[in-house]
Formats: sequence, structure tokens, C-alpha cells
Amino acid sequence: MTSFFEECAAAAVPVDERAARAAAELHLRLTKPPGALGRLETAGVQLAAIAGQSPPPVPEPAAVAVFAGDHGVLVEGVSPWPAEVTAQMLANFAAGGAAINVLARHAGARVVVVDVGVATPYEPHPGIVDANVRKGTGNMAREPALTGDEARAALDVGASTAARLVDEGARALITGEMGIGNTTPSAALIAAFTGSPPADVTGRGTGIDDQTLAHKVAVIERALARHAATPTADDPIDTLASLGGLELAALAGFIVGGASRRVPVIIDGVIACAALLVAHALVPEALGYCVAGHRSTEPGAAAALAHVGLVPLLDLDLRLGEGSGACLALPVLQAAAKILREMATFDAAGVTAKH
Amino acid sequence: MTSFFEECAAAAVPVDERAARAAAELHLRLTKPPGALGRLETAGVQLAAIAGQSPPPVPEPAAVAVFAGDHGVLVEGVSPWPAEVTAQMLANFAAGGAAINVLARHAGARVVVVDVGVATPYEPHPGIVDANVRKGTGNMAREPALTGDEARAALDVGASTAARLVDEGARALITGEMGIGNTTPSAALIAAFTGSPPADVTGRGTGIDDQTLAHKVAVIERALARHAATPTADDPIDTLASLGGLELAALAGFIVGGASRRVPVIIDGVIACAALLVAHALVPEALGYCVAGHRSTEPGAAAALAHVGLVPLLDLDLRLGEGSGACLALPVLQAAAKILREMATFDAAGVTAKH
Repeated sequence: MTSFFEECAAAAVPVDERAARAAAELHLRLTKPPGALGRLETAGVQLAAIAGQSPPPVPEPAAVAVFAGDHGVLVEGVSPWPAEVTAQMLANFAAGGAAINVLARHAGARVVVVDVGVATPYEPHPGIVDANVRKGTGNMAREPALTGDEARAALDVGASTAARLVDEGARALITGEMGIGNTTPSAALIAAFTGSPPADVTGRGTGIDDQTLAHKVAVIERALARHAATPTADDPIDTLASLGGLELAALAGFIVGGASRRVPVIIDGVIACAALLVAHALVPEALGYCVAGHRSTEPGAAAALAHVGLVPLLDLDLRLGEGSGACLALPVLQAAAKILREMATFDAAGVTAKH
Repeated sequence: MTSFFEECAAAAVPVDERAARAAAELHLRLTKPPGALGRLETAGVQLAAIAGQSPPPVPEPAAVAVFAGDHGVLVEGVSPWPAEVTAQMLANFAAGGAAINVLARHAGARVVVVDVGVATPYEPHPGIVDANVRKGTGNMAREPALTGDEARAALDVGASTAARLVDEGARALITGEMGIGNTTPSAALIAAFTGSPPADVTGRGTGIDDQTLAHKVAVIERALARHAATPTADDPIDTLASLGGLELAALAGFIVGGASRRVPVIIDGVIACAALLVAHALVPEALGYCVAGHRSTEPGAAAALAHVGLVPLLDLDLRLGEGSGACLALPVLQAAAKILREMATFDAAGVTAKH
């Protein structure tokens, strides 16, 4: 039987290069020197390619999906924060008090919170979708984080969340996540998919000291060595299962789901960048629908974006995750569409072009 | 008699360091790792310092003032665009079809258009404020661009525009401008105030070729040599008059006017950066109220910002001016205030702090 993720993967088509060319040509007729709006112009061209029309529709309203999961690797001592914080933050998201709530309200985006792998019990809340596949991953340093079936189930959760949000009106999707310890599996996935040494793509996450950072790198090296010894090490799903996390798998599915519905998907920090590598490995066509919202201070984020050739819109020294940086990029993306839709042309405005 | 600009200069007080410390302390209690919101946190601290309260008010609504003027130096062949385009673009601004109109509408900011020095006659329009001081500057390569009195009159136009906009409700000011040829006086002012060689701070403006760029640098060198030979070369007003422009002087007044009213002033591209150097030389206290909206591709912009120690929020390869990049930065600044106002603390949300 075909899974929902597989349906979305099959439905994802390359972005429309004809619409992209039409938008690039339209930019030349608007009342400004050619190219003077820089990244706003390239973003507008990409939006046209995604929507298949020039000028492109404004990507609004937007929706942020915050996928939450826990990580068995936390027992190795890779983070100073206890696992219960993942569940506590779910309640904070549901109550509207976290950074992503503030930033999403500011950007006019809705937030949906999806438990795809939280380990600690919590009070059910109408604002939290229970799609729990497994209560936290295995410790990737000693065993696969997930089974292949669990990884596929989490991909489905992400893809179906994307489809539902678009069905409910979203015209831009924002990748959010929460999971204490999740910069560790993200760095492992980025090392595996880019071939970079773990020390080059592993960062301080919430702010660990030098000693914990060295230990975190060693734990990731151990997990990569264990994974490399498996017969399936070159299969993206197996790599995801071996080194990943439930929210990471859901984000990969979410990206592919958004691409299948032809809406832009704004990629947040290092967790979303790791998920992007998974999505790209499984469904290369999905990449054209992705916009890198910002450059996280985590080194793995920049490495992952460079690997797939995306240049981030913002660079604000953020390292929070939750979707925060992607949410801040949303108004820039919307402005890019409005430039193409609302600016006067030289002819219409009666402005003389240059000598 | 004291001019309005001088009144504003006298009223500008240093930003409030006590409120800044209170905001920095509040950031540590919000439900996120310390420092994880990077530039959003430092921007929030600055907003608290500007307003003298923590959390700071959200800087909304905002207003963009687009000061327009023409330049005698255009006869030297420094731009491929004819001077009439300045007046034609005034009509485009008044009709709402220019980039700044689109971006200001998107950001919820009003746009006021002020003719402080346009040379070409145009049809009067209720959306254009006639505050013309002189119909274009003199050719700075051969003579002072302005008299001291003209420069002072344009400073007054800018300061009174800022005061009026704040009186009418604006809680953030955005520096906009239009003037064919105005990257040339901007580069000259930046060279004069930073001591950089003209070749290091002169850019391609709307997009000139290598030969025109070399000529533009030579014209600026000639103007600087003429100015250096005057007995008043170390007087900021005289430097402004000698090398500046009417919209540049108005912008310097606008910055000081905003500071005197204790609202943030978002600095746009190279023209606004040159005006910032003038404002800073005349009223050092004004700097604390300034936020660098973006890093223009014009080399003089980065040199000017580095000279006064400002780091731009955005870097989107923009070189349009009009206030466009500053307008794109406004939502980031507003988000910075909302983070401090709306995020839950660890205590209130019942979230465990790290081990």
C-alpha cells in the first residue's frame, strides 16, 4: 500500500521555470534600476516558479507546524536541559507564551503543535495534536534511533500535517520543532548526508561548554560509525531511522507535503536544515519549494544549506529553533510577491528609463 | 535665533542605559536559552534604551519620509539617468506605485513625500509636501553644493518633518530619499567624515559601468580637494554644504528630530548612512536612536556604519534606496519589542531551567 508520504512524493513536480522567467522579465519593467532589489527579486522569481504564475500570489496566510519529539541520546549527556522540558514547552506553545507564538502572531501565521514523539506524559490540550509515533527515540550512539516503520510513520505525520494546513487555507508553510537534545541527531544527519566531519557540523545547541561540545562530537562519531557498519547505510530512510528523530522525520515529510501542494516551505534552523537534507535525498523536486529563512549560528545549518545550494534570507545570530527565524523571514517573502504584484511599470508611471 | 534643528539638537538626550539593563535581565527570564534570539535580543535592548522603559513599546505605527532633491554634479556625467526622473518619481510616490509605497503598505507604515530640492517642475499633488529650499544643488566638483544657510534650512525641513510625524502618532521613523545622482554626494560625505579614500567608498549606484565608476571617483576626488582647501573644512555644517545635497541635509535633520522625540530611526542605504554621519558629527547623542536597517551593496554604506559602530539587521543585496531596506527591517524591530512584551517567563510557564 502506498503511504501518504509516498503519494506526496509522487505528486511533487519541479517548479515552473517558465513562470520564473516571466517574473524576471517583469522585474525589468518595474520603476527601479534592474536588480536594485537584490534578494527580494530572486525571492519573487522563486515564488513565481513555485506557484506557476507571474506575478505570484502573496504567500499568506502562513502556518507554522511545531513538531515535538524526544531523544534517547540525551542519556549520553549532550545537553544541560532535562527531557521534561520538551513536554513543558508543549504546554507553553499551547498557551501562546513561547517565542514562536509571539513571532507567528506578529507575522499573522497560525501555529499548530504536533506531538510526534514526546517521551514525558503531559496534560492533553486542544491546542496539541497527538500524533505520537513513539515516546522518544532510541539512543543512536548504541542502536538505531527508530525502526524504518517508525520513520515512515513520522514522515506521514509531517506530510499529512502539511496537506491539512494547505487544505485549511495556508499558502506558506513554516518548519517548527521542539525536542531537547535534537541538535545532536541533526548534526549526525548533516554529517551523514554532506559527508562533512562531525566536528565541522556540530554546534553548541542551547549553549554547551567546550568539554560537552567535544563529548557531543564523540557521541555523533560513534553513532555514525555504528550506522556506517549497517548494510543499508546508503538508503535515506535507513539513515533517517538510524540517526534521526521523530520530529526530524515529520519535518522531512512536511517539506515534501508542502512541495506536493505547490506552496513555499520556509526552512528554519539546523533541525529543519537536517530534515531538508532527508527530504532532498528522498524527493529532489521538493528543493525548489524551499526557502532558507535564516542562517542559524549552528555550523551544521550553513553546511546543509550550502550542500543543497540555498542562501538564507536573514542572518540574525539566532539559535532558538521552534520556527523562529523562518517566521521572521515570512514578511520578506511576502514583500517579494507584493513588489511584483503592486509596483508600477516605467510605462504606466511615465518614468523615463536610463539613457 | 535658534532654529528648529538646533532646538531638536539641544533636546536630544543619551539613550537610557538603565532601561537597557532591565531589558537584558528580562531576556534571561524568558522561556528560551540565554542569547538564543541573537540580534532580536540586542534590538530589544536598544528599543528599551530608546524609550526609557522595559519592556519597550512596540515601534508602531511607523512613518517613512521620502526627501527628494536634485544634484548639480549630474552634469559631470556620474549617472545614466536624467534629472527629470527625480520629479517623475515624485509623481510615482504620490500615486503609490514605487517600491517604497509597496513595502511601506506591507509594513503598515505611512509614506510622506517631501520636495526639499527638486529641480524639474512638476504638477502639484496633495501627497507631495513642497518644502523646496533650492531647485537642485550646485556642482560640487566646481563650487559648494549649498550655502550654509541652505544646508541649515534643509536640516530644519528634516527635523520638523520628524517632529510632525511623531506628533501625528508615528512611533518609528524610516529614512527615505530620491534624487538622481545622489550616491555621488553621499560617497563624498562618507569619504570626508570617515577619512576613507573615495575609491573605497564609491559604488555603482543604479548600475554604472567601470569607466563611469572611475570617472565618478575622479569627480568626488576633485570635490574633496576643493573642499579641503576651504578654511571651514572641519565644520560639519560646512562639509555638508560643500559636498552634500538637500535631501541629505534633510535626512540628517530628520535623524536628529527623531532622536529628540525619543523614537527609533531606521537608517536605509548609502544616502541615509551619509546623512547619519552628518547627524552624528553634529549631535552625537542621536546615534543611540538609530537602527541600521540593512547593508546596502554600495561600499560607502558599510564604511559609514562601521565608522559609527552600527551593525545592519538585514543583508539582502539591496541598492534601491527610497527607504526600501529600512522598511523591510521594521517588522524585525517590532518583533524584538514583542518578544520582550509577550513571551512567558520560566516561572510563569512552569518550564524547568537548565541543569
